[in-house]
Amino acid sequence: MKKEITIGIDIGGTNSVMGAVDRDGNILGENRISTTDYPDIHDYVAALHEAIQEMLKSIREETELKAVGIGAPNGNYYHGTIEYPPNLIWEGVIPLCDLMSKYFSEPVVLTNDANAAALGEMIYGGARNMKNFIIYTLGTGLGSGIVINGEVLYGHTGFAGEIGHIIMVPGGRDCGCGRQGCLETYVSATGIVRTVEELLAQRRLASPLRRVAPDRLTAKMITDAAKEGDAIALEAFDKTAGMLALSIVNAVAFSSPEAIFLFGGLSNAGKYIFEPTEKYVNEKIQTIFKGTVKILPSLIPENNAAILGASALAWKELEKRDV
Amino acid sequence: MKKEITIGIDIGGTNSVMGAVDRDGNILGENRISTTDYPDIHDYVAALHEAIQEMLKSIREETELKAVGIGAPNGNYYHGTIEYPPNLIWEGVIPLCDLMSKYFSEPVVLTNDANAAALGEMIYGGARNMKNFIIYTLGTGLGSGIVINGEVLYGHTGFAGEIGHIIMVPGGRDCGCGRQGCLETYVSATGIVRTVEELLAQRRLASPLRRVAPDRLTAKMITDAAKEGDAIALEAFDKTAGMLALSIVNAVAFSSPEAIFLFGGLSNAGKYIFEPTEKYVNEKIQTIFKGTVKILPSLIPENNAAILGASALAWKELEKRDV
Repeated sequence: MKKEITIGIDIGGTNSVMGAVDRDGNILGENRISTTDYPDIHDYVAALHEAIQEMLKSIREETELKAVGIGAPNGNYYHGTIEYPPNLIWEGVIPLCDLMSKYFSEPVVLTNDANAAALGEMIYGGARNMKNFIIYTLGTGLGSGIVINGEVLYGHTGFAGEIGHIIMVPGGRDCGCGRQGCLETYVSATGIVRTVEELLAQRRLASPLRRVAPDRLTAKMITDAAKEGDAIALEAFDKTAGMLALSIVNAVAFSSPEAIFLFGGLSNAGKYIFEPTEKYVNEKIQTIFKGTVKILPSLIPENNAAILGASALAWKELEKRDV
Repeated sequence: MKKEITIGIDIGGTNSVMGAVDRDGNILGENRISTTDYPDIHDYVAALHEAIQEMLKSIREETELKAVGIGAPNGNYYHGTIEYPPNLIWEGVIPLCDLMSKYFSEPVVLTNDANAAALGEMIYGGARNMKNFIIYTLGTGLGSGIVINGEVLYGHTGFAGEIGHIIMVPGGRDCGCGRQGCLETYVSATGIVRTVEELLAQRRLASPLRRVAPDRLTAKMITDAAKEGDAIALEAFDKTAGMLALSIVNAVAFSSPEAIFLFGGLSNAGKYIFEPTEKYVNEKIQTIFKGTVKILPSLIPENNAAILGASALAWKELEKRDV
């Protein structure tokens, strides 16, 4: 019997990566194309198809393709469209699933990257037995995927799960969304850099972080400084954790998940982010929810997460259509 | 053919009210007992059963009882229990559905009052064709029921949907939950009274509200003053609406509902609360959600809402078991 596979595709601003993945999360083949090489979306889809055929060449004999899953910024699951993506070269509403269906007879489904990460966690990662959980993806911004009763929460519009754009501080830091005080301006790789900048202005402490231009300061440098015991870096993690904990406590009041997973960038700071976050969650959580929610690192390796998440979307779709 | 009915029971701190309700929301019979008369839960359940039999006497011939639904503070749908209710005379975890099942062969189900209100809106009210909406019940506190894909959101614990206890202002007003700055300390009948007290201290404006002792000030008095054009009352509604709008905008980022329903107490202030809330929601909402969410008054009459909500829970349960 042939081994069943799905294809996971992650569309990034610069590159698009794809992989052929079996039900256990083994990646049997990989390929990539440059996203920016194809200003015409039809050319892009043709190039994607070609790259997939090339990837499948050596495994076609022993595998059977079941479905294609795509993770893309502003991806809308309901419509199979990418809508007004800020960081892609195409504009407006792109009917990607329709365009792909000209090349594939198998189901083609699409969602945004954070929802794909949630599905990756549910199919291959630490949420395999969970029905209610949330994943926070802590990169340049803060993405989130919310799972309720075993299903990704898409809401009325298909765009639910924008925890990064919950306003935490009215009139607070300017956000890329045009508003102010959104969670991602505090809790993300760029958010902690802004917190360090504020602290450097506020405190008189010496710190190696003073020697770096704000434009060049990275979350990684802050983590390294924290490991050396730098007080500014440690305070920045403490403040970031405080805001993250407030967001978690409020998310628990809303949807009462079993676990919150932290993924990517900032979550790699390990105990510097997890320990204070747990402490503040325990302090701030409403009594009826005490002890009901775990805060866990994602179990999906970061370098494969995008492909695995997109392929998980495809497996999940097959489950749904089977019912 | 006999007409199918469910019984809806609402357990309040003082009284328990019950009604026999048909599929269209007609209340065919009503009764009530005093909750506080029965310190022993077994006596209470026996008295409830007796009151129900009495209520059904005159309609038993032409009706067929299908299920019993109960709305109660801290009601847990998953376990059929009332857990540590702050305002009821019984303590600890009360296995109410189990106790009721000794008297009824029909399904007996239980949830909290705000979730029952959401179901009432979905079965009989303004949310009849909606799959994703939220109801805010604006009474002494702020309750909420969240519906996602046509199902009430209970979460991992059964206690999801506590929007009233989302922390809006860290270190803000003391809340009955033991924490500070929860939404319900700002947006509720008592919340707007606190806002008026603050404004009376802050402003030098004359106001009829200055002649009322803080202990006796009510949301109704503030509404009446607003109708007379009192500047303090109008500013209090504006501030309340601002906080409510922030909560709505953040709830939309989380679950992207089609509508937010406002029910009870404060929502009766009509345009004084709806108009500024809509204005601030339009100002603050994230671009991708603009125009996607309606803010609506509940269509369930307040005096029947508790019975209708609990009976809706029973109808909903029958639907679920039919699948």
